[in-house]
Amino acid sequence: MTAATRRPGGRTERNRAAVLRATLSVLAEQGFAALTVEAVAERSDVHRTTIYRRWGSADGLIAAALAESSTDAWQPPDTGSLESDLRELTRELVRGLTSPGDAELPSAVISAAFQSERAAQALREFYAERHRRCAVIAERAVERGELPQGTDEVEIVRAACAPIFYRLFISREPVDAGVADAAAATAAVAARAGAFRRRD
Amino acid sequence: MTAATRRPGGRTERNRAAVLRATLSVLAEQGFAALTVEAVAERSDVHRTTIYRRWGSADGLIAAALAESSTDAWQPPDTGSLESDLRELTRELVRGLTSPGDAELPSAVISAAFQSERAAQALREFYAERHRRCAVIAERAVERGELPQGTDEVEIVRAACAPIFYRLFISREPVDAGVADAAAATAAVAARAGAFRRRD
Repeated sequence: MTAATRRPGGRTERNRAAVLRATLSVLAEQGFAALTVEAVAERSDVHRTTIYRRWGSADGLIAAALAESSTDAWQPPDTGSLESDLRELTRELVRGLTSPGDAELPSAVISAAFQSERAAQALREFYAERHRRCAVIAERAVERGELPQGTDEVEIVRAACAPIFYRLFISREPVDAGVADAAAATAAVAARAGAFRRRD
Repeated sequence: MTAATRRPGGRTERNRAAVLRATLSVLAEQGFAALTVEAVAERSDVHRTTIYRRWGSADGLIAAALAESSTDAWQPPDTGSLESDLRELTRELVRGLTSPGDAELPSAVISAAFQSERAAQALREFYAERHRRCAVIAERAVERGELPQGTDEVEIVRAACAPIFYRLFISREPVDAGVADAAAATAAVAARAGAFRRRD
């Protein structure tokens, strides 16, 4: 590898970005079953041997694309109160999981995790990072005196978001902003009542 | 069709039971991708043309097998208090979703619903029936005065179970009896605080 291909903006970096972008596009449009090195090569205009050498397979591509997604700039809402932070969070989640054009990718990735242990591991790391970023919602609520000390910051986030995923992907029921608000309100009520105090 | 093949215990009924049993076995052992009429014919010893004629395809097989599962004798726990009913329910769920030999089928069916609209519809009906059966948990709690009138009986069940499905199939985190107990306790706290009052 020469200095020219190593630098940001160099060909290696351009290829990498194109391949990961193509991976997400193929996943969103056609699902994990269609995610092949050939499909990504065609979509990205990067040679298939380059892709094989660096990512190996569909497993490697989805893992790398999800790891890349974890480094985005997303931050949780900061509205000044626990319940409205959670409400913004769950409403954003509902939009992301139901809007045409946004919803296909998370669904494809969650589905892929059933079929590929590497996809499952990448999904685990993606949500662990999201959980870490969302911990600040509870930390600020503790500082404001809205929540008891020792509240498990991540457990609130899981409680607020889980009913939305449950309806969409397990019981296969519809979700809307009302469901988002109810999930946020329930998590806030339970948190204030001390339901998420750490079990030590 | 003759009287002999129509009667319960007749050949038609035996074939039907064998085919649906084989469908569930193939799903549990090999997943939805392996669920073909050929595989079910081989496993059930029922001729493939009989299977094609009656169920059509993998979609039809999974829908029929899930519909059959919905007619089982399962009943929710009845322990005398809301929180312990929910705790039994979530512990049973954790066992069913994590014990080798039990866990494979629900995972395969949830995965299939991402790939087949008929499987998704069958899963929706399966959980709707489970929700209906579990409503009695909240009804008894209202009668005992543990919960306010007007509590949404199904919303409690969703809240208790959702965090377990979320960890297993979305954030891909481990679950155990402690997670089950915490989910039950959280749902009970929120329910007692009126978080699941119907929004009318």
